[in-house]
Amino acid sequence: MATSRFRLLVHGTDRPGIVAGVSSVLTEAGANIVSLDQYSTSADGGQFFQRTVFEGAPDVDLHGYTQYLASAMESLGLSWKLRDVQQRLRVAILASTSDHCLLDLLWRYRRSEIPMTVPMVISNHNRVAEDVRSFGIPFVHVPSQGEDKSAAEQEIVRLLKDNVDLVVLARYMQILSPQFLADIGVPVINIHHSFLPAFIGAGPYRKAKERGVKLIGATAHYVTEELDEGPIIEQGVVRVTHAEDVAALQRKGALVEREVLSRAVLAHCEDRVIRHGRETIVF
Amino acid sequence: MATSRFRLLVHGTDRPGIVAGVSSVLTEAGANIVSLDQYSTSADGGQFFQRTVFEGAPDVDLHGYTQYLASAMESLGLSWKLRDVQQRLRVAILASTSDHCLLDLLWRYRRSEIPMTVPMVISNHNRVAEDVRSFGIPFVHVPSQGEDKSAAEQEIVRLLKDNVDLVVLARYMQILSPQFLADIGVPVINIHHSFLPAFIGAGPYRKAKERGVKLIGATAHYVTEELDEGPIIEQGVVRVTHAEDVAALQRKGALVEREVLSRAVLAHCEDRVIRHGRETIVF
Amino acid sequence: MATSRFRLLVHGTDRPGIVAGVSSVLTEAGANIVSLDQYSTSADGGQFFQRTVFEGAPDVDLHGYTQYLASAMESLGLSWKLRDVQQRLRVAILASTSDHCLLDLLWRYRRSEIPMTVPMVISNHNRVAEDVRSFGIPFVHVPSQGEDKSAAEQEIVRLLKDNVDLVVLARYMQILSPQFLADIGVPVINIHHSFLPAFIGAGPYRKAKERGVKLIGATAHYVTEELDEGPIIEQGVVRVTHAEDVAALQRKGALVEREVLSRAVLAHCEDRVIRHGRETIVF
Amino acid sequence: MATSRFRLLVHGTDRPGIVAGVSSVLTEAGANIVSLDQYSTSADGGQFFQRTVFEGAPDVDLHGYTQYLASAMESLGLSWKLRDVQQRLRVAILASTSDHCLLDLLWRYRRSEIPMTVPMVISNHNRVAEDVRSFGIPFVHVPSQGEDKSAAEQEIVRLLKDNVDLVVLARYMQILSPQFLADIGVPVINIHHSFLPAFIGAGPYRKAKERGVKLIGATAHYVTEELDEGPIIEQGVVRVTHAEDVAALQRKGALVEREVLSRAVLAHCEDRVIRHGRETIVF
Repeated sequence: MATSRFRLLVHGTDRPGIVAGVSSVLTEAGANIVSLDQYSTSADGGQFFQRTVFEGAPDVDLHGYTQYLASAMESLGLSWKLRDVQQRLRVAILASTSDHCLLDLLWRYRRSEIPMTVPMVISNHNRVAEDVRSFGIPFVHVPSQGEDKSAAEQEIVRLLKDNVDLVVLARYMQILSPQFLADIGVPVINIHHSFLPAFIGAGPYRKAKERGVKLIGATAHYVTEELDEGPIIEQGVVRVTHAEDVAALQRKGALVEREVLSRAVLAHCEDRVIRHGRETIVF
Repeated sequence: MATSRFRLLVHGTDRPGIVAGVSSVLTEAGANIVSLDQYSTSADGGQFFQRTVFEGAPDVDLHGYTQYLASAMESLGLSWKLRDVQQRLRVAILASTSDHCLLDLLWRYRRSEIPMTVPMVISNHNRVAEDVRSFGIPFVHVPSQGEDKSAAEQEIVRLLKDNVDLVVLARYMQILSPQFLADIGVPVINIHHSFLPAFIGAGPYRKAKERGVKLIGATAHYVTEELDEGPIIEQGVVRVTHAEDVAALQRKGALVEREVLSRAVLAHCEDRVIRHGRETIVF
Repeated sequence: MATSRFRLLVHGTDRPGIVAGVSSVLTEAGANIVSLDQYSTSADGGQFFQRTVFEGAPDVDLHGYTQYLASAMESLGLSWKLRDVQQRLRVAILASTSDHCLLDLLWRYRRSEIPMTVPMVISNHNRVAEDVRSFGIPFVHVPSQGEDKSAAEQEIVRLLKDNVDLVVLARYMQILSPQFLADIGVPVINIHHSFLPAFIGAGPYRKAKERGVKLIGATAHYVTEELDEGPIIEQGVVRVTHAEDVAALQRKGALVEREVLSRAVLAHCEDRVIRHGRETIVF
Repeated sequence: MATSRFRLLVHGTDRPGIVAGVSSVLTEAGANIVSLDQYSTSADGGQFFQRTVFEGAPDVDLHGYTQYLASAMESLGLSWKLRDVQQRLRVAILASTSDHCLLDLLWRYRRSEIPMTVPMVISNHNRVAEDVRSFGIPFVHVPSQGEDKSAAEQEIVRLLKDNVDLVVLARYMQILSPQFLADIGVPVINIHHSFLPAFIGAGPYRKAKERGVKLIGATAHYVTEELDEGPIIEQGVVRVTHAEDVAALQRKGALVEREVLSRAVLAHCEDRVIRHGRETIVF
């Protein structure tokens, strides 16, 4: 029986001895720590976060380590998550008509650059159907017209609930309701354009152009009930000049969006991100 | 008599023949165009902007070229500005207690990296006095306490009016009144921190930290009556992580601020920036 | 008859009056200059480069402007190139087994982000055939085994000669002979990894890892007889850390390669690049 | 008695239980781990590196923790280094005529941005003397003319030996002999320009210009007997265009050099860098 590799995320109130406690229980269970990242908001009573990658003993599997860890974690007062690195996350992608973020994710998926499976792509348009299916991935069209989006949201929940571990909005141009977020029960990652400074409301690229911005960017974040205000996972920017028109800014912005979203999904799928209130710890 | 080098900025409504018209009058006046940058918001009836650097004929000086150009520019319906590159801009710097932007400007001034003179540094504190004087530059303390800033502003106007071509706010922590901007009569450049997305109000670094931003930046802009909303000249960002506290974000932010402000002042002093409404053209 | 837009590149020995001369002949021919970029290596007897985009008069086409310009350019001693912006460059792509650069080019082609057509993709492997054809583009397999590559090169020349305006090596892992470069008769753009400092010979990523480099990059350049030493068109870098292994460096390097190569091909297809000896002017 | 904060660097052959072993001994000694970064070249028999910041118990000082750790580290087969964070590194700076790197270091020193003291600046020129002394730091002129540099090197060793923990070459334009490196007995950090690709020999900026490079950079590294080939600590780049002449490239290069060198010295002074053969681990 070959050794397996596991990722352990822990989180809780900091106090002396946590690192030693966690690493000791792993060592006693035959694990060999491959990498360990740790962060505390404050050494005394702050919040403690740790990501550990370890190689398991040949005769202990995920179930075994789960049992070893359960009582130790409880006594240390820590919440925790353990995953076998072979167990790739199941990721659903929601898209609309733009394909730049979607295709970049699918391309990295095919190259095994992101440890995920993609059970399904859902769109409120048919435009990307053929592309998606060329990757061997099911495409489902869920129209979303009219004021009331609840029927569409319910169908998406029915399709994805318990089937996926993450939902990625790859330029999905529909606002999701708090009810959807509650029902879907897994994290949702979104990408949107970002500027220095921010331009609120419709037509942000036009407004940015009018103000003469020299940098345009993108932000990937977890979706919360506060629209576009969720915890930030990753950001990026690119330089622009006065000579570029609004369409050129949008094209450059699209390139930043795909890069930033793919990096965010990669970080999530490698269990590098811990949400903490409105902030993220990205190891 | 050696040749001189000149910079010509022109701006006006675009129409066919402007580039040919401007370059022809220069050629007829014995000038040799060294570099030419041109931009139109739209080829048909939009706004036209051009920056031309040329070597003058040995027997024609600034006055001579001013005369040559005056009638040509009027007939082309263009506003224009001509400067001998030897004629460095006179730049006053206003600072408060932070020295990072101020010292970077003075250091580049001393290395002749920015074509400017610095007739005076004014501060509402005494903290940077010694540093400024070590560069051989006069330092004047103009206190600015209490609600009414008009006396302080009037003294600054009295000191700088007609003595300088540009005022740079190097982390000058006083809000300037519309009256001051009208009285001073020269452009004013400011630097302020910027984030993706923006965080409005007091404590922006703390707010940025709470949201988990991964990029912090700075924006240099011309000051207008709309606070922090003037035309953008230059921007920059730097990556940060969750492991950096608010003080670390501020330190990194200070490094971006000095770099961005110095680049903006350099661009202005090389006559590379044309203001156009709320936008800038930066050649 | 609608107006057309043209790009004019000129190059020659600098002397007074060139800008005026070129712009005047355009104005006389009814053209309206939309943008103009100019550069001289030295104002006195150096080399002069200019890129002009102009809208033509409704009744003058490419042939017409070619005639207008021919005598003027000859009298000014300038070499020149004129293109109707509607006339997209015909670009052949050569690839091997890696798909990252190839797919990024095809994706931008499909989105009309690069003004080109892609008459053919050629590879010495069959691996990317299906992907290429899914874009509606012919794929031709030209094997290249053994010491003597001349037969393969001759077949490529036979397929592409006079059919394309540019050849792009999208991670094509064959060294092209000087004979091929002479026979193909059009520019060839290549992409290769780059490091600070350079690591010569085989296994550059491994060598870079051993030395602990913190930046890895890519360079797009025109291919000349001097292998990997041709004029540079575009470059880019990305940060890496000690925690990334050689495979991770290669994955990040691939992302920089696709971005840099696509930007270089875009610049070439928009007639922004002028080769000058071992250097490039990129407007 | 207030608590103190310590940094512990450990390095050795990896094997199961090291993280647990180190953290357990710290916990037993009343320490509270504030941050922990760990890296292994390979989980099985590779090299193990760890940086731990911890708060000590009120009644245990540096001497106490040194004793606690000594036997534990020996039994784990690890080499280690422990420092009280209050104990700032003593850093000597060597400079020649350029002041950009020197002044940036002194400026960050004065702002307490780098946890170091600067007992002395040595130069083979007198040019920067006044600037250095304005920071309240002794300046010593050690001329270094002629072929034989050994007298100058011996004087530098005499001045610095046992007085400093680090030597920084801030554009010190003298090649240091292997004998000097052996005698001085502390790490030496150097900064030099870097390009994609590299340009060997004299006049690198001119060569880079001739090749049309689009990025210029800088590399900070530890000095070894192999000139400019030591382990890399930090790197940076900046974009340039064809329109910038060699002097402009040098000015931009100087800005990258000061930034990269200061970041490297900061990382070293915060005990973030572990040398490992020709590589560095930078936590």
